[in-house]
Amino acid sequence: MTAATPPPAPAPVPARFSINQMTVRQLPLPELVRECVRLGVRGVGLWREPVAQYGPAASAKLVRDAGLEVTSLCRGGFLTAVEPAARAAALADNRAAIDEAATLGTDTLVLVSGGLPPGSKDLAGARARVGEALAALGPYAAERGVRLAIEPLHPMFAADRCVVSTLDQALALAAPFPPSQVGVVVDTYHVWWDDTAPAAVARAGAAGRIHAFQLADWVTPLPAGVLNGRGQLGDGAVDLRWWVSLLDSVGYRGPVEAELFNEELWAGDGAALLSDTTSRAALLLS
Amino acid sequence: MTAATPPPAPAPVPARFSINQMTVRQLPLPELVRECVRLGVRGVGLWREPVAQYGPAASAKLVRDAGLEVTSLCRGGFLTAVEPAARAAALADNRAAIDEAATLGTDTLVLVSGGLPPGSKDLAGARARVGEALAALGPYAAERGVRLAIEPLHPMFAADRCVVSTLDQALALAAPFPPSQVGVVVDTYHVWWDDTAPAAVARAGAAGRIHAFQLADWVTPLPAGVLNGRGQLGDGAVDLRWWVSLLDSVGYRGPVEAELFNEELWAGDGAALLSDTTSRAALLLS
Repeated sequence: MTAATPPPAPAPVPARFSINQMTVRQLPLPELVRECVRLGVRGVGLWREPVAQYGPAASAKLVRDAGLEVTSLCRGGFLTAVEPAARAAALADNRAAIDEAATLGTDTLVLVSGGLPPGSKDLAGARARVGEALAALGPYAAERGVRLAIEPLHPMFAADRCVVSTLDQALALAAPFPPSQVGVVVDTYHVWWDDTAPAAVARAGAAGRIHAFQLADWVTPLPAGVLNGRGQLGDGAVDLRWWVSLLDSVGYRGPVEAELFNEELWAGDGAALLSDTTSRAALLLS
Repeated sequence: MTAATPPPAPAPVPARFSINQMTVRQLPLPELVRECVRLGVRGVGLWREPVAQYGPAASAKLVRDAGLEVTSLCRGGFLTAVEPAARAAALADNRAAIDEAATLGTDTLVLVSGGLPPGSKDLAGARARVGEALAALGPYAAERGVRLAIEPLHPMFAADRCVVSTLDQALALAAPFPPSQVGVVVDTYHVWWDDTAPAAVARAGAAGRIHAFQLADWVTPLPAGVLNGRGQLGDGAVDLRWWVSLLDSVGYRGPVEAELFNEELWAGDGAALLSDTTSRAALLLS
């Protein structure tokens, strides 16, 4: 045997890259942390459900002891209910999410607003109730060092998941509050199609309201239910490098999370998926 | 047996109601025409493929002899190709569609712009090519008494079907041309979620650029591929009565088409579907 040529060195992992836990949900938290350390990934975006399974304090210790930063917690929100009891329960759940974010040491709680209440056709009313909930939650979050980050979801989720569909709407909801309390999430999967989004990103950047930046690509055909068909970085229609440049140009210097929801990717090996996603992100961010 | 109480008389069918052929695609054209006459439906929106099967001239005679009006022809468009040969073929196909519209006696050809060319991530460039194609097609259409109606499709189709996602974009594309040449389609399924759409409808109405108005409801979960899951009128999240009022308020007096694409509805009896859709539309338009 002759000596094998070593493979080309991969692009170094940028310090601002973060892996959202949902991307590799087949990895239990300890494995995710171990693989991040092995690859040189320094940030993780966590989700409440797996954090609750492992325990918030234990999760915080595990991540901190490994030298990782929690870049965001997903997610609060679902604030569109009409009935007082349901609204009170939603607010209580969001306060719990804020507490969990503080425990994890992240300053960013992602909010998905919620869809239309059953039988309702009143989008404007639902959006207004999100604003009312922000007024109730903002000070509580600020006291704990947590910023609320409103995430507009793609309009295909407007009925059943998120009545906030554009960055303009999210910024309008954030406007009454100081940027240290309420800002927005820019997720390429949700806003890539929108020709008004770049101007909104510029305004959000100037106002210091970009509290999270997430990457996913758009691939077709969409799967039934349309939730779990986000494309691996570079596989789809989104000019991700352009979006990274845009966020750079408006002064965003925070973490860049890869957040994929994809049944096919989840069916494969989690460590390999993390490595592949990290390599692709490193190329985009280099 | 006692004499049965007669059922309540259904709402009369409004003169402006039109059934889009795709809604009941299980009905061959002669059956569609016969059922429209039986129910008192006076307008039909036709599609090129079934018209080609029956023959454009024969279709025109069949519909005209039954006293029906063709309210629109679907569809031209798919104008985003880059290669000269593909662009020339698309323009030729659109001229044929304009000729077919003239043969059918409708003044409205619906245009679906087309998605991103394979491998492209350049949405803005694709939209610009749609504008160039309109410049090539507008005069040809005007000479034949046909108006081009740009239909924004829901943003979930931006990559693979239609890079024009909002009424604002459609109106910007129409702006260089006289309203008698180029206008827009307002389809509730595609624009219901958009809080900028009502202002765009108002501008379009004032400019005389609403060339078609189509109704469909939004129901979830969406099916795989998301094309054929449009909801029956009244079954979903869209406040259709509000949209009808909006179009009324901006001076739109043209036909109102029901256009559903729904695999489950297509699997049932076409005449019953036509009757049900007509009854629901009659209530909305009354």
